[in-house]
Amino acid sequence: MKASQFFISTLKEAPADAEVVSHQLMTRAGMIKKLGAGIYTYMPMGLRVIQKVEKIVREEMNRAGAVELTMPVVQPAELWQETGRFEKMGPELLRIKDRHDRDFVVQPTSEEVVTDIARQELRSYKQLPKNFYQIQTKFRDERRPRFGLMRGREFIMKDAYSFDRDEAAAKASYQVMAAAYRRIFDRFGLRYRAVAADSGAIGGDLSEEFQVIAATGEDAIVYCPSSDYAANMEKAEALAPQEPRPAASNPLTKTPTPGKSTCADVAEFLGMPLANTVKSLVLATDEVGEDGQVLRSQVWLLLLRGDRDMNEVKVSKVPGLDAGFRFATVAEIESHFGCKPGYLGPVGTLLPVKLVVDREVAVMADWVCGANEADFHMTGVNWARDLPEPDLVADLRNVVEGDASPDGKGVLAIERGIEVGHVFYLGTKYSKAMDATFLGEDGKPAFFEMGCYGIGITRLPAAAVEQNHDERGIIWPDAIAPFTAVICPIGMDRSEVVRQAAEQLYSDLLAAGIDVILDDRGERPGAMFADWELIGVPHRITIGDRGLKSGQLEYQHRRDAAATQVAVGDVLGFLKEKLAG
Amino acid sequence: MKASQFFISTLKEAPADAEVVSHQLMTRAGMIKKLGAGIYTYMPMGLRVIQKVEKIVREEMNRAGAVELTMPVVQPAELWQETGRFEKMGPELLRIKDRHDRDFVVQPTSEEVVTDIARQELRSYKQLPKNFYQIQTKFRDERRPRFGLMRGREFIMKDAYSFDRDEAAAKASYQVMAAAYRRIFDRFGLRYRAVAADSGAIGGDLSEEFQVIAATGEDAIVYCPSSDYAANMEKAEALAPQEPRPAASNPLTKTPTPGKSTCADVAEFLGMPLANTVKSLVLATDEVGEDGQVLRSQVWLLLLRGDRDMNEVKVSKVPGLDAGFRFATVAEIESHFGCKPGYLGPVGTLLPVKLVVDREVAVMADWVCGANEADFHMTGVNWARDLPEPDLVADLRNVVEGDASPDGKGVLAIERGIEVGHVFYLGTKYSKAMDATFLGEDGKPAFFEMGCYGIGITRLPAAAVEQNHDERGIIWPDAIAPFTAVICPIGMDRSEVVRQAAEQLYSDLLAAGIDVILDDRGERPGAMFADWELIGVPHRITIGDRGLKSGQLEYQHRRDAAATQVAVGDVLGFLKEKLAG
Repeated sequence: MKASQFFISTLKEAPADAEVVSHQLMTRAGMIKKLGAGIYTYMPMGLRVIQKVEKIVREEMNRAGAVELTMPVVQPAELWQETGRFEKMGPELLRIKDRHDRDFVVQPTSEEVVTDIARQELRSYKQLPKNFYQIQTKFRDERRPRFGLMRGREFIMKDAYSFDRDEAAAKASYQVMAAAYRRIFDRFGLRYRAVAADSGAIGGDLSEEFQVIAATGEDAIVYCPSSDYAANMEKAEALAPQEPRPAASNPLTKTPTPGKSTCADVAEFLGMPLANTVKSLVLATDEVGEDGQVLRSQVWLLLLRGDRDMNEVKVSKVPGLDAGFRFATVAEIESHFGCKPGYLGPVGTLLPVKLVVDREVAVMADWVCGANEADFHMTGVNWARDLPEPDLVADLRNVVEGDASPDGKGVLAIERGIEVGHVFYLGTKYSKAMDATFLGEDGKPAFFEMGCYGIGITRLPAAAVEQNHDERGIIWPDAIAPFTAVICPIGMDRSEVVRQAAEQLYSDLLAAGIDVILDDRGERPGAMFADWELIGVPHRITIGDRGLKSGQLEYQHRRDAAATQVAVGDVLGFLKEKLAG
Repeated sequence: MKASQFFISTLKEAPADAEVVSHQLMTRAGMIKKLGAGIYTYMPMGLRVIQKVEKIVREEMNRAGAVELTMPVVQPAELWQETGRFEKMGPELLRIKDRHDRDFVVQPTSEEVVTDIARQELRSYKQLPKNFYQIQTKFRDERRPRFGLMRGREFIMKDAYSFDRDEAAAKASYQVMAAAYRRIFDRFGLRYRAVAADSGAIGGDLSEEFQVIAATGEDAIVYCPSSDYAANMEKAEALAPQEPRPAASNPLTKTPTPGKSTCADVAEFLGMPLANTVKSLVLATDEVGEDGQVLRSQVWLLLLRGDRDMNEVKVSKVPGLDAGFRFATVAEIESHFGCKPGYLGPVGTLLPVKLVVDREVAVMADWVCGANEADFHMTGVNWARDLPEPDLVADLRNVVEGDASPDGKGVLAIERGIEVGHVFYLGTKYSKAMDATFLGEDGKPAFFEMGCYGIGITRLPAAAVEQNHDERGIIWPDAIAPFTAVICPIGMDRSEVVRQAAEQLYSDLLAAGIDVILDDRGERPGAMFADWELIGVPHRITIGDRGLKSGQLEYQHRRDAAATQVAVGDVLGFLKEKLAG
């Protein structure tokens, strides 16, 4: 490609609404252009990146035996009503009425449509396993779209759906996809981690997120540097402490803590470590009658160490809370504890509450908690002596750096990531909802066992930029760079020697199958280099009159601090070696 | 590709709602699957065809210097309000409200968005010419979607938009696209015609449709077999007859024609050729005040030969009718002619009407028209003698086979076609509406001169099927076949010799870069052949035990009546020769 034939549009300044670096740099590099909130045109420079991502994904999906099709963007609501998602999904699902006033949605994913295809097309176990995928435009009407391609409303996703005859076969299909995803992410040339994720109500361990590592990532990734354990924060288990509970050594004391309603304030006020305090979280569950009226409610008290964060996913798996819970109202709190929030605790409640104790709290001694009286805390609290031994102990908290790894092979570390892929075992959730069956080997109809597998095609480039940039701009990995190499001739319009050398090198690189752009725009060197550093083409070759006199060109990788002199005749070999590395 | 790894799903019967052969065959061949009215999933077999079409289009668009981008499917209404199309387009434009109650549309085309990009990005004449294109999902909410991919609601279109500094440059860009389209359609391997089309209010001749020839086509294509003249029916000019008007020979006579209100009935009743009769069409134009009220109306009488069809596009260009017209009401007709429709004529009207006379009628003598009295016609009508010479003569009719070609090089023929591409000079219609300017060489802002260029990516395969099929199924041209060749082994599961020969040939063809599928499903020969004939893969190689004993395979093109024996060692060369042909 010659720059004069292409479209290059760089900006000095990022738009005011660009909060994250990928949004800033991709806009400045002319890769994306905002049309509306969360809606972007993929400009020529950006589309090349997206198409390279698509190509890698397509090749590896095909290699893994998945079969590509394309489902409609605009989908009839009927199928979405079969699974109940038309009602359940809320305003994120973009709804349309056509000219005949029929309901449609713009697809956010395609479980319903693909399951409808399967129930019509896959009639026998002999046709299984089958994995259908598409690379197609999606829409999610995010309440607050932002961060450019990181959290857009319209985006491109690769979504795949596997259909199997039984759970064992479905798990095998899942593993095939998990392996394909590793090949895909390896080929992208990004640092990433496949992390175990929560699989929701379905259970089992068959849910992994593919996280691109970036300091700016929204997600916390938990991993063990000395093993291959990795999970997202929701999933990562905090093991029960190994040490036994120390003996009680302090008396239970009601201690004045005037105005100190947080654990941190109390610890500071009392001059003790925050880890000695216990925080009380009050939840409630409702029993609902057939008419939707709440018949009765139950109040729950959760105890966590004062320096820990509650993990909502873990809490939602506690028996009794697993059908849904809410935070208790102030009225409920006052009726049960006789006290406003800020001074609550398990000792001496007015009405009985269900107690759930974090594994850590269960082995603490001489701890501090609210006294159920404003401006007072209890100190020297001890299990068995001051209140009964907890009977419901669970993992309720987020892990922290230094926690023991669940695989017993070291301690946990935490880094930030951007979720770009997800493989997920669905079981029969959709096939049962849509009565999607096939005839089994025994001649009886059976529900499909399904899996789903997504990759955010337009999110991936944004994640790549978050991971790979510097103050001058983007630094693309070779595999997904808009161009692998750029030739920058200095004074091409003045020097016939430079022009000829540039054109010759351009032809040679093209002939060698290298995706090269020749910058024939006639820009001055400073502006030209700044453009390509912003755009982030990894390999640059500069051609100038001075160097040519001694038969030299300049090579500089986008990460190099300085250029390397290369003899004109050696440059193709030199570059090939760089690309192979 | 091996069939066992792919997805093949053929049907014996076409769906009840499939009216046209492409819809029937593409559904039966498992290429498309209906999800809703006018909304289809492109199944794996069909998607391969679409992707091959896309690849050819992309390669030739790039070669012609166009630059690819991707504009959003969901577009904010604001831009559509700038051009007025949000209101004007009617229910065909699919409208959406997002969660914040803002208006959006699902793009039917992208003139507004691309013009918005141009007015922001193309600031100087130095950046021109520029041609942006996309291959993207579109939606038109057709009132009566039908014919499968021929007239769907959701479809894929390649739409390109050129931006130029002046009309001459825009016309050059148009010609570049017109030439690129010829290369594209040549590569598809279909019989097609580029025909001149009406360019609407913009004028000029810069509008061509690319029509795939098919007996079932919706459009009539007019061409001259002895020259390169070709136009669509709207556009094709009917020249004025060369012969002078004959002298009057019959007296003007009011003749009873009881109950004969059509030209055909009158001609039959009077025993004269239909070509002697003249039909009267009554139109009206309205002068509208600023408040939208009709201030006054004008009634027009159009005269055409009784055997001719009115051409609405031509009528809409008659001076005085070019700002819009309607058919007159019965009340207007009665007040002007004193008579009900069916017996109208230009002789002796009650109120004056504006007369527009087709070129043919202007040179007729002794003709027949209504007498403005029920059950009576005038015979022996002659210009000058019975009514004044016509002062407004125009081409008002559709041409017919045998009419003189407008280029004077022969006579016209007519065939049917399916419009799949359109190149169109837009001028400043959109740039003026959206105030889209660039800085010209003179330092002054100027409106972009634009062109637009579409290809119906998903319509093309349907048109190909309409043109190329027989009673057994589809016959794809090589370039867009889902697979170029299929290997059909007979008894692969029983014969190791057959299996090895099939696998070897499969590897050899793949290595030679031939897009081949090996049917390893183990189907019986009859069912296997029927599938591939329905699917329409052009080249088939059959491998059987019997043939292998004498070192022979069977080759059969989809159009061949019988197979050809080819020695195993020669088959690759044989096939390559077929593909080159």
